[in-house]
Amino acid sequence: MLNKSQIDAHNEKGLAKHKKGFDYVSGIIPDAEGIIKKLTDFQVAIPSWALGSGGTRFGRFSGGGEPSTLEEKMEDIGLLHQLNRSSGAVSLHIPWDIPTDAKAIKSLAADFDLKFDAMNSNTFQDQKDQKLSYKFGSMQHVDKGVRQQAVDHNIEVIKYGQELGSNSLTVWLADGSSFPGQLNFRNAFNNTLESLQSIYSALPDDWKIFVEYKAFEPNFYSTTVGDWGQSLLYANKLGEKAYTLVDLGHHLPNANIEQIVSLLLNERKLGGFHFNDSKYGDDDLTVGSIKPYQLFLIFKELVEGMDARGLNHATDLGWMIDASHNIKDPLEDLLQSVEAINLAYAQALLVDSKALNEAQLNNDVAGAQEILQDAYRTDLRPVLAEARLREGAALSPLGLFREQKIRQQLIGKRGEKTVATGL
Amino acid sequence: MLNKSQIDAHNEKGLAKHKKGFDYVSGIIPDAEGIIKKLTDFQVAIPSWALGSGGTRFGRFSGGGEPSTLEEKMEDIGLLHQLNRSSGAVSLHIPWDIPTDAKAIKSLAADFDLKFDAMNSNTFQDQKDQKLSYKFGSMQHVDKGVRQQAVDHNIEVIKYGQELGSNSLTVWLADGSSFPGQLNFRNAFNNTLESLQSIYSALPDDWKIFVEYKAFEPNFYSTTVGDWGQSLLYANKLGEKAYTLVDLGHHLPNANIEQIVSLLLNERKLGGFHFNDSKYGDDDLTVGSIKPYQLFLIFKELVEGMDARGLNHATDLGWMIDASHNIKDPLEDLLQSVEAINLAYAQALLVDSKALNEAQLNNDVAGAQEILQDAYRTDLRPVLAEARLREGAALSPLGLFREQKIRQQLIGKRGEKTVATGL
Amino acid sequence: MLNKSQIDAHNEKGLAKHKKGFDYVSGIIPDAEGIIKKLTDFQVAIPSWALGSGGTRFGRFSGGGEPSTLEEKMEDIGLLHQLNRSSGAVSLHIPWDIPTDAKAIKSLAADFDLKFDAMNSNTFQDQKDQKLSYKFGSMQHVDKGVRQQAVDHNIEVIKYGQELGSNSLTVWLADGSSFPGQLNFRNAFNNTLESLQSIYSALPDDWKIFVEYKAFEPNFYSTTVGDWGQSLLYANKLGEKAYTLVDLGHHLPNANIEQIVSLLLNERKLGGFHFNDSKYGDDDLTVGSIKPYQLFLIFKELVEGMDARGLNHATDLGWMIDASHNIKDPLEDLLQSVEAINLAYAQALLVDSKALNEAQLNNDVAGAQEILQDAYRTDLRPVLAEARLREGAALSPLGLFREQKIRQQLIGKRGEKTVATGL
Amino acid sequence: MLNKSQIDAHNEKGLAKHKKGFDYVSGIIPDAEGIIKKLTDFQVAIPSWALGSGGTRFGRFSGGGEPSTLEEKMEDIGLLHQLNRSSGAVSLHIPWDIPTDAKAIKSLAADFDLKFDAMNSNTFQDQKDQKLSYKFGSMQHVDKGVRQQAVDHNIEVIKYGQELGSNSLTVWLADGSSFPGQLNFRNAFNNTLESLQSIYSALPDDWKIFVEYKAFEPNFYSTTVGDWGQSLLYANKLGEKAYTLVDLGHHLPNANIEQIVSLLLNERKLGGFHFNDSKYGDDDLTVGSIKPYQLFLIFKELVEGMDARGLNHATDLGWMIDASHNIKDPLEDLLQSVEAINLAYAQALLVDSKALNEAQLNNDVAGAQEILQDAYRTDLRPVLAEARLREGAALSPLGLFREQKIRQQLIGKRGEKTVATGL
Repeated sequence: MLNKSQIDAHNEKGLAKHKKGFDYVSGIIPDAEGIIKKLTDFQVAIPSWALGSGGTRFGRFSGGGEPSTLEEKMEDIGLLHQLNRSSGAVSLHIPWDIPTDAKAIKSLAADFDLKFDAMNSNTFQDQKDQKLSYKFGSMQHVDKGVRQQAVDHNIEVIKYGQELGSNSLTVWLADGSSFPGQLNFRNAFNNTLESLQSIYSALPDDWKIFVEYKAFEPNFYSTTVGDWGQSLLYANKLGEKAYTLVDLGHHLPNANIEQIVSLLLNERKLGGFHFNDSKYGDDDLTVGSIKPYQLFLIFKELVEGMDARGLNHATDLGWMIDASHNIKDPLEDLLQSVEAINLAYAQALLVDSKALNEAQLNNDVAGAQEILQDAYRTDLRPVLAEARLREGAALSPLGLFREQKIRQQLIGKRGEKTVATGL
Repeated sequence: MLNKSQIDAHNEKGLAKHKKGFDYVSGIIPDAEGIIKKLTDFQVAIPSWALGSGGTRFGRFSGGGEPSTLEEKMEDIGLLHQLNRSSGAVSLHIPWDIPTDAKAIKSLAADFDLKFDAMNSNTFQDQKDQKLSYKFGSMQHVDKGVRQQAVDHNIEVIKYGQELGSNSLTVWLADGSSFPGQLNFRNAFNNTLESLQSIYSALPDDWKIFVEYKAFEPNFYSTTVGDWGQSLLYANKLGEKAYTLVDLGHHLPNANIEQIVSLLLNERKLGGFHFNDSKYGDDDLTVGSIKPYQLFLIFKELVEGMDARGLNHATDLGWMIDASHNIKDPLEDLLQSVEAINLAYAQALLVDSKALNEAQLNNDVAGAQEILQDAYRTDLRPVLAEARLREGAALSPLGLFREQKIRQQLIGKRGEKTVATGL
Repeated sequence: MLNKSQIDAHNEKGLAKHKKGFDYVSGIIPDAEGIIKKLTDFQVAIPSWALGSGGTRFGRFSGGGEPSTLEEKMEDIGLLHQLNRSSGAVSLHIPWDIPTDAKAIKSLAADFDLKFDAMNSNTFQDQKDQKLSYKFGSMQHVDKGVRQQAVDHNIEVIKYGQELGSNSLTVWLADGSSFPGQLNFRNAFNNTLESLQSIYSALPDDWKIFVEYKAFEPNFYSTTVGDWGQSLLYANKLGEKAYTLVDLGHHLPNANIEQIVSLLLNERKLGGFHFNDSKYGDDDLTVGSIKPYQLFLIFKELVEGMDARGLNHATDLGWMIDASHNIKDPLEDLLQSVEAINLAYAQALLVDSKALNEAQLNNDVAGAQEILQDAYRTDLRPVLAEARLREGAALSPLGLFREQKIRQQLIGKRGEKTVATGL
Repeated sequence: MLNKSQIDAHNEKGLAKHKKGFDYVSGIIPDAEGIIKKLTDFQVAIPSWALGSGGTRFGRFSGGGEPSTLEEKMEDIGLLHQLNRSSGAVSLHIPWDIPTDAKAIKSLAADFDLKFDAMNSNTFQDQKDQKLSYKFGSMQHVDKGVRQQAVDHNIEVIKYGQELGSNSLTVWLADGSSFPGQLNFRNAFNNTLESLQSIYSALPDDWKIFVEYKAFEPNFYSTTVGDWGQSLLYANKLGEKAYTLVDLGHHLPNANIEQIVSLLLNERKLGGFHFNDSKYGDDDLTVGSIKPYQLFLIFKELVEGMDARGLNHATDLGWMIDASHNIKDPLEDLLQSVEAINLAYAQALLVDSKALNEAQLNNDVAGAQEILQDAYRTDLRPVLAEARLREGAALSPLGLFREQKIRQQLIGKRGEKTVATGL
């Protein structure tokens, strides 16, 4: 952890330049203060598995200084939150991060000012002591025993979450098939529905369940919750506590994700969001590193749709990063991710929605494009920095991280070869 | 039109070879007669716009002898049906083929033994005398007047259909947007729903309405009925006479269409099918010319799912070819299309569903693949030919078409430069 | 055409705001003047077919006031150039825009301060008086007569170009096949090569020939110049006056175009560029409207690669817009296009190439991303405006176009229903 | 290993049915004997890493009875070859399968009648004792030391291959980048070229080097040998012993692989082939399980192009399976793979090339399709079985494998939890 004086020194150094930038930009946009307020409230959850180096099926190149316990992971997230005051939530994955002493973990979270966001279950891998295998699926499985095991696991995850103060469960199912003929699609769907219903029955009243979809991988022919249409079918059949969760990388090529987001909000069934970016498949790259304009368009729909539905941006949807840091330092990657998310959010808030509405009513296509691009092309980084400054975070989170050589410190403390649990 | 003796002479010539083939294959498969029976009942509708040369946005190369009236189009379809006895239905498109004298058209259809399948409306082009433009959409339009015009047109199409004895309406909407910001997605969705509801109210009790979806083109950013999930939302909100229609070419790259088909049948909402094939987008190539195994897998799901739902293969779904014959003779292309469809259907009927079910229950993935490939690799062309032979059609429809130089005859009769209405 | 006082009045009105913006941004970037200089030199050619409304294969919705003669088209381009001083070149298409009186056309061009960029031939459509058809290809055709006709046409196009002072020929071939088996790929390749060699022989010494590639459409199974690898093969076999031309929309999904650009520059074989944007296929949308970051990355490679090869940005490559204005006013679309191109170019010039090189040598992946994003996120619109201001163009070209109601003027002058030649 | 009497007993049982099928099909095709001859000569190499269960980045579900030594792997391949007499070659991967005692391994290979096909190097993973890391590439690396290490490794692989009697080296490079800016594309290309040239210098005179390309994964932004165009550039710059290797799964969506194959043969630069199948990316599914018609079309080009170039089908190209058996028994999967390859090859041999050529010269597109589909739809499985029968292999390799419960035997012998080296 950093101490306040380190942050202050960093900010002091950059203040003059920042001031100039903020003065300029706040002078040309209508409501800098409103955007700052919303940015301050908006928090993105960091998943506990994102603090270590990820890999591909071809191998993994380890970084160094990775956290090897849940406590160390929370320490890392605490650090991120200190740097940007926008990462005030943790999303835990069971069984990678079982909170054996919930009370101690909660107290640690309080120290770092962190909340517990959605809990994540895992029925896509076999654990060492596991009775039945998920090789051929979990909730879709032809064997009722396997389905029950998967259901029980999810109920256990809810229990862990309750102890920590979480109030939502994200279910991502790798279930599907890799070859034609392997699966009876209807049975797989109906089995999965039944399994989800069992979990839903065990869901506390104030909890939500998020049904995540994914087009392909690790199954390569079909996925049983494969697109937003399927996820919405499940969510509708489950009930009002069930929602669809959108992960940016989980679509077929060229899918219009912003339209999906809009329609799900229209149906009051959008529950949450996993941020990352990709060029080819579920590449799990840093959000905003490949298609930042798409990210802005998605946020535009989120803001517009949530406002139309009377939802609170900060609290009514679950926001989480879900990326794989194969070649970047995970903490640096997460700092870049949060910055990209906040930037897209701010740009979306800047859109002149009244003028846009008018352009749309006039079928003024070129005009509508001008309105969007005007918001997108405006450099709002000083506004983000100002929001951080006011909250006591760093003007440049990544800059301070590097100045303080934090990775080197972590390596010194934790070692060169530690491996975090996760993918 | 051919006369019976021409067909007989053709069949006589090929009979010995056919006999040998049919004897062999009927000896190695369990129920050739059952397949023949089902093939005989199964009829694929020919759309009235498929009898002429299509084009691309880069131009059109005309063929010759194209039909220039509805009567000539029906004559062409009558010929196809004579050749294969599997094309006993017409699908009309309004306003390209307005049946001004419905009685005469019905009588002509009776002469050719043709039924009237789904009617097709057109709100994606502006007609010469049209009051308001569809440039910015029809049922989604921000202007209620345009929406009403589109609704009225569809109701008129229903009226034409009623006169002819059709009992379904296919609504394909090109509505969407080509640029970010152009459209408010929610408003577009809700406007479209409202428009469809108006049409639905006018739908006769024994009619169905098919809501067709398409991923992209002619709009290149978003489509308002863009995937099966959206279509199903509309169909569910409309009511029990509303169904989803699947066109093979209307998906994002790599979509698993057979799974979609299965899920729609599971939801009792699959209404019909448009056959074609593609490599890149909505290429509208001859069905079975690029991905014949996918076609088989789709039919496998159709057969399995319809049987599970107690549906009649021949009558409970709408089957139609929807391709664009840019460089092939349209009639030859349609003969190849019907052959490919029938072949895939027969292969699907051949699948040992009991063994497949068992393999699935045992997670015997390799075994399941063997079962599917065994059906697919069996050469069932003699069974198709036998079905035709028994119905008085040609052993080789395309062969007879060429032997009789029918295209040359049509050119002689209709001219070299005729242009059929359509795309 | 506008008169100077109209432009001056427009600029006067916006000057104070502009000043403030330019002062700010020129204070935070290292070399605003250098960027302005390069922007001023950089001119994007407007193709003669881009002044009218385009269409799709499903139809065309006309705009109004479209130019119906070459003279009117040049007038439109002259207007664009007046507005932004960045569109000082015309790219003609034969036979859509045959300059029957070359001298008069050249004099008109001089009036508008326009140059003649690459000439475009057309062997993808049949013209009214054409002897042989291109239905089955042109330079690939199995019939030598068709190939010769295509060669002759291109030589004629060169002749027209020489009269006007152009010095390059762009050859886009739609040649390919729509069905497996239709083509012998080797013969098609070798025939095409031979045809191109005949044209190359007729190419004046100071001319270049650009071989454009396209993945698909209008052929839907194979294209004979289908990707950069094929184009480069042709270019290498032809000789040193032959180059590859890259059109942004002519790739398979997810292709890394910036890498292609870099490799072609490495091979000294990149000849030119067609700008547009797309989400699905060759959508021909306004450049920068869908993937502006990709556009920036491409320009980054262009700048870096041209500098490494000692090429002049403004003159050593051919730059052209190639889009289809289906629903926007073509002139507005072109103004937006040029703005997006200039913005991406300016951002690319802003990249700190020394720091980037260092980051690359250190495998500092996160650092390299910061450097790129820093340039991309900087709002350089005031720099573009300043460049225009100094050249006597409009601070806001689109703004002035709308203020002066130029489209309405053109409709008044040319009529509501004029149709420009082209797609 | 099976003994001859087990195979004989299996064949005896199926003989009558086989006879009937073979009699029929050999009676309707022109040259069954010619096809049998070619099938007999045609051998597909089995890679040493394909005998164990593969995985995805989400985990791995182990099978049982997997080989844990090179000797056991060769035993497995020997078994496959006994069953189908079409798998008479091994492709080794270094360092997963270092032949420490080359003489003993060669003698073992002779016992199983196996040859050593292409050797495979590995510079995409870090080995335990490795000095420098490949995290940021190998032959492209900014550090000359890393490049040299990769070169040295490849030279060592050649040495192992020479000891065993192999005469080709396959180089697959994972090199590339995951984020914009990470790499200077030109430097990466030129470094890679230089590295390959060093290896090429060490290549024995009678060896070939295959440069494999891949569109993406494990790098997710760019790949330095990313498509056939890049691979061909390297191969041409290296010299006449260098060739391009095509892996079916290594392309962007919708790529026309058969055209690539044809063009590479036209350039005399196609060196080898990796078989697998896929729906989404490099899924590494069983060849022929998803797109069998594409496989046929590829073989059609292979046969046609090799014949045109006077190449020997069996010996002038390298043929290898490269799949990942995540959920199927690897041996069953490989048996299905070889069957699918042989079937496609036989179908391609059946194509009436004279008639096809004529149809192409007449632009008879429908006719050309008929010719291809006629070959493809013919059930040639009895011809494959006959070829096996004559060579002493099993009528049904997979059938016999299951009858003899070979997997259970292997589990009994090797254990339930063995893990083969590989991915």
